[in-house]
Amino acid sequence: MKKHNFSAGPCILPEEVLKQASEAIVNFNNDDLSLIEISHRSAPFVEVIEKGRRLALEHLNLLNKGYKALFLQGGASTQFLMTAYNFLSKKAAYLNTGTWSTKAIKEARLFGDLIEVASSKDKNFTYIPKEYTVPNDVDFFHCTSNNTIYGTQMKTFPETNVPLICDMSSDIFSRQLDFSKFDLIYAGAQKNMGPAGTTLVVIKEDLLERICREVPSMLSYKVHVERDSMFNTPSVFAVYVSMLTLDWLKGLGGVSFIEDVNKKKAKLLYDEIDRNPLFKGIVSKEDRSTMNATFTIVNEDLQSRFDSMWKEANISGINGHRSVGGYRASMYNALPLYSVQALVDVMKELERKA
Amino acid sequence: MKKHNFSAGPCILPEEVLKQASEAIVNFNNDDLSLIEISHRSAPFVEVIEKGRRLALEHLNLLNKGYKALFLQGGASTQFLMTAYNFLSKKAAYLNTGTWSTKAIKEARLFGDLIEVASSKDKNFTYIPKEYTVPNDVDFFHCTSNNTIYGTQMKTFPETNVPLICDMSSDIFSRQLDFSKFDLIYAGAQKNMGPAGTTLVVIKEDLLERICREVPSMLSYKVHVERDSMFNTPSVFAVYVSMLTLDWLKGLGGVSFIEDVNKKKAKLLYDEIDRNPLFKGIVSKEDRSTMNATFTIVNEDLQSRFDSMWKEANISGINGHRSVGGYRASMYNALPLYSVQALVDVMKELERKA
Repeated sequence: MKKHNFSAGPCILPEEVLKQASEAIVNFNNDDLSLIEISHRSAPFVEVIEKGRRLALEHLNLLNKGYKALFLQGGASTQFLMTAYNFLSKKAAYLNTGTWSTKAIKEARLFGDLIEVASSKDKNFTYIPKEYTVPNDVDFFHCTSNNTIYGTQMKTFPETNVPLICDMSSDIFSRQLDFSKFDLIYAGAQKNMGPAGTTLVVIKEDLLERICREVPSMLSYKVHVERDSMFNTPSVFAVYVSMLTLDWLKGLGGVSFIEDVNKKKAKLLYDEIDRNPLFKGIVSKEDRSTMNATFTIVNEDLQSRFDSMWKEANISGINGHRSVGGYRASMYNALPLYSVQALVDVMKELERKA
Repeated sequence: MKKHNFSAGPCILPEEVLKQASEAIVNFNNDDLSLIEISHRSAPFVEVIEKGRRLALEHLNLLNKGYKALFLQGGASTQFLMTAYNFLSKKAAYLNTGTWSTKAIKEARLFGDLIEVASSKDKNFTYIPKEYTVPNDVDFFHCTSNNTIYGTQMKTFPETNVPLICDMSSDIFSRQLDFSKFDLIYAGAQKNMGPAGTTLVVIKEDLLERICREVPSMLSYKVHVERDSMFNTPSVFAVYVSMLTLDWLKGLGGVSFIEDVNKKKAKLLYDEIDRNPLFKGIVSKEDRSTMNATFTIVNEDLQSRFDSMWKEANISGINGHRSVGGYRASMYNALPLYSVQALVDVMKELERKA
């Protein structure tokens, strides 16, 4: 019996994807060679990465709309500096909604001036600031769509005429948005897309004209776009599993289908958090993330009992992040509804027994 | 029957490593979870990366000698810029032995002045320059120990009192050297260490004091050393398979054992290239690489016949790089001696039939 895996990331991936990936490690493409011991420039792998790039754009409804998808290395943390290295000429505007925004801001400061248009640090990032304006004279505006650690999620994005850059690491491919409003989207693979080791970048080609300084090749979006995401050897396995996961999503019915499932899962859990007097949500209701639900147990004396109960129910990965405490249940695309039901059942059982 | 895989990289990996890796994708550590869906900060994965870092130092005889091993992302191509970003304050000296050295030089120029102490470009990099001196007033000296594309290998390294930085991507763990002479060694995993997606950096801790400018976190050796190679989510799968491969090497008897095997494989093939009148080696004999043997067929009319014959013998990956032509047989650690024998047999058979 597989565990109910609520890990915040790296996180649960579809079982059929894991099975295919496992097979490809011993025999890929029926070619009697492993996926990981063939040239990345061989036809079978080029097909993999091209399919992955196409599927990513397709899921975001950006195919043939002037965007390119890249599978880079280094995680979102590398994008923090790459976005600034390429595009921060004088000053840029950032929205600060948590740990990852704060880190993005720190790295960008090396390259120019920064305006923090708003921050929710005053309340330990338990809400998304809404009353702010993006200045018209900045190089770009940067925000984080979903805050994994706190469990908040931006439901709307500001209207602005400056380039819009968004870190969507923890909610990409989980919901429909008008992605054509964004000029650059990046996401570490290890939530809804695949294993750690590759980072998706979706960039509007027009934005390349705004590169403002000489950038080392590996950090240049222009270089990676020109070389079709194969400037150097990519993270072959991570790209392959990402492609499989994007293909799995397509087979299910795409982002619109999974968005419905994600809403059902989130509703099931948040309804129980609100109903059950033993538990309490941590963040503002209107900003609750459909991906990461954070909550506390009201009476701390019940904590060890609850912990034993969910472990016994084969649940894993719901301990809260050290900077928030309490619990965090991450409900990424591959987590089935019945796993959320299993957690809700334990919460109800605790109420009965308490 | 598995192919005789002479691919230049990504390249052949040990069969038992592939088998273990394949199993870990469905069930890692008997924990009913996949290796790629658990937290990188969970105890089982921390154990993996720590074991990998320890084994890397052990194989280089650098354990407890003031060095740290890191598993970073971005390939050797990212090290081209990172070495310069961190350590090139005024000027640095580079030895130019091929495509990868040339690329390293190009990226470093963004950060300071460069002295090319010698280059073998005059003869399409078919030899290793030997008559040069490393200036005493440079920030560091950089060289490439093995040139995958041309099939040349440095047999000795200059004595110098400036920091010695070496790209060992294609021959690390293949031979014994006095590695304590080096201040920083880097290597993309995808030759002798594992799959593409991680890069080993072995750095002398003293060198960290020479970081000469403010460096973004992801590009800072200091940050990665301080965070035990876990500043951000590492490339989990690539690190795991690298650890397994380093462990496999240890089980065999380590670098001294594999060096003997590598010498035997290289001797077998080069002896045939020199003996068989149909073939000719491309590079200077004294600079021949034990990892990548490059050769041409003297009478080009025989080429298509030879190509059919080696394909029929279940051999793959011996086409030469487009910038050199001819053939290239890569004989990394995991390639068995009998695969080289299979190639030599085909060369002999061609001679008999021609």
